[in-house]
Amino acid sequence: MPEIVPDKEIINAAHLRIAPYVHRTGIVTSAFLNTLTNAELFFKPENLQKIGAFKARGGVNAILSLTEGQLKNGVATHSSGNHAQAIAYAAAMVRAKAYIVMPENSPKVKIEAVLGYGAEVTFCINTPEEREQAVGKIIEQTGAEFIHPFNDYRVIAGQATAAKELIEDCGMKLDSIIAPVGGGGLLSGTALAARYFSPDTKVYAGEPEGAADAVLSFRSDKIEKAPFVKTIADGLLTHLGSKTFPIIKKGVEDILLVTDEDIIQAMRYLWERMKLVVEPSGAVALAAVLKNRALFDGKKVGIVITGGNVDLGRLPF
Amino acid sequence: MPEIVPDKEIINAAHLRIAPYVHRTGIVTSAFLNTLTNAELFFKPENLQKIGAFKARGGVNAILSLTEGQLKNGVATHSSGNHAQAIAYAAAMVRAKAYIVMPENSPKVKIEAVLGYGAEVTFCINTPEEREQAVGKIIEQTGAEFIHPFNDYRVIAGQATAAKELIEDCGMKLDSIIAPVGGGGLLSGTALAARYFSPDTKVYAGEPEGAADAVLSFRSDKIEKAPFVKTIADGLLTHLGSKTFPIIKKGVEDILLVTDEDIIQAMRYLWERMKLVVEPSGAVALAAVLKNRALFDGKKVGIVITGGNVDLGRLPF
Repeated sequence: MPEIVPDKEIINAAHLRIAPYVHRTGIVTSAFLNTLTNAELFFKPENLQKIGAFKARGGVNAILSLTEGQLKNGVATHSSGNHAQAIAYAAAMVRAKAYIVMPENSPKVKIEAVLGYGAEVTFCINTPEEREQAVGKIIEQTGAEFIHPFNDYRVIAGQATAAKELIEDCGMKLDSIIAPVGGGGLLSGTALAARYFSPDTKVYAGEPEGAADAVLSFRSDKIEKAPFVKTIADGLLTHLGSKTFPIIKKGVEDILLVTDEDIIQAMRYLWERMKLVVEPSGAVALAAVLKNRALFDGKKVGIVITGGNVDLGRLPF
Repeated sequence: MPEIVPDKEIINAAHLRIAPYVHRTGIVTSAFLNTLTNAELFFKPENLQKIGAFKARGGVNAILSLTEGQLKNGVATHSSGNHAQAIAYAAAMVRAKAYIVMPENSPKVKIEAVLGYGAEVTFCINTPEEREQAVGKIIEQTGAEFIHPFNDYRVIAGQATAAKELIEDCGMKLDSIIAPVGGGGLLSGTALAARYFSPDTKVYAGEPEGAADAVLSFRSDKIEKAPFVKTIADGLLTHLGSKTFPIIKKGVEDILLVTDEDIIQAMRYLWERMKLVVEPSGAVALAAVLKNRALFDGKKVGIVITGGNVDLGRLPF
């Protein structure tokens, strides 16, 4: 387990390592949204990724980075969402046991997906303390390897491959890439991918106003919690980690806030115009571009659509 | 305007002609649906096509097949749906005037899309007679070229390119290809593409029980109307035409009926598992595969997802 910030070689190795197990999701475009923004937008549709989200990249890289000895007692994590599925999927792939702690109020569809991969699910009350305590207990009893959802360099290196592909596949130099920020695994990976594979490309983040920890941390130069948490983008509620924050601070140009209304409008464009099922968190980067048109006017912009795991019975339209 | 059934050369020419103006939509797969069906499914996501449906192929080919003389008075058609958008899109591309007759109860979003391409829309009462009369009057007044939604060899040759790409891009020989059938433009094109580019591949169709004209026509060997019309698949209400029927009769293995319940279940899989926004008509082919598992068991099956133009305010979930 490399305890250094992933360098170019580590990200290249991660990309080769995960390639047989994840989709190279390609790039999609929309003439309508190009006209609307007066920019050239290149979307990375990670909603079409295995398990429906980019998290497959980090999960697969983390688990394939473990030795057989480390794998023999299984892997463990806590997550109500896409990271849970990613770890369950990756563990099944290498026939390792996966212990997943999920809040008891997790969406049924996500619990079923995790169980579908053969993982063992433990339910807990949905507070950070309860989650961590439950995982701690499992690790103590089983000796399983803990894989953090974002504050882990193996995970960060995996997430970096999404922006790496965007840079490689769009066929021209991007002026900027924008990704949403929650715990910062994807955003820090995006910043590293830009640094190594397209150093003139600026990296931006979109963040919900109702979970505005990253923008505060970015401005104050230390990890802050959000002043309040209330947003439809349920994948972005976490604050930054000790490993993701320094990479973000160094490599990200700015963090742009969006409201839930902005997010729903961006989702609507992605669904209606691009025919893509995208979860609210997955529409945050486009929402930020739509809200900051002057910043991206005339530019070539890569936009990461992060996931599409949404409950069809509870749509905001 | 070729008045012969499109041959291999005509379809190749159509493909080259439309290539700069439509997307090569690629192929998508789903491990979940492969396991569920015990088959290897290759989806052609024409919901990601220009104007959100395969109809762009036929519309663009028809319009690019016209001479400047034919184009100078514009083009005309009647359609409440995707063909209207296809003709409006293609006409705008060559700066020709498009006259579109639409039923007055057409979905607002489709009317707006057609207007958005700069077409002139005439509203009429939604009966076949009223539609044809309205188009006839426009053609008399303007001298515009009429482009039928499916009973036109230029349109059929354009639609054939979807299955041609599926055959070329899936990287192995398909045992069968299945497409939905309404008027039969796509299905006859699919049959021709299989005949010329993969002659051992069997072609099937899916059809809603609530618009079961094609299966009746197929069995009785003459064009029949549906005994009743009531289905969620609003893109498949028309009966076969004099040009599409003989090609279908010769080249299609069987036509498989599905209920609205089957269609909604298939839609749900496409949305939830594949993250694709697909309209009810677009899910009919998958519904037919799910309903006839023995027929496709262990087979390599190409499935055409025809379109994604759906009103988010009126979803069946």
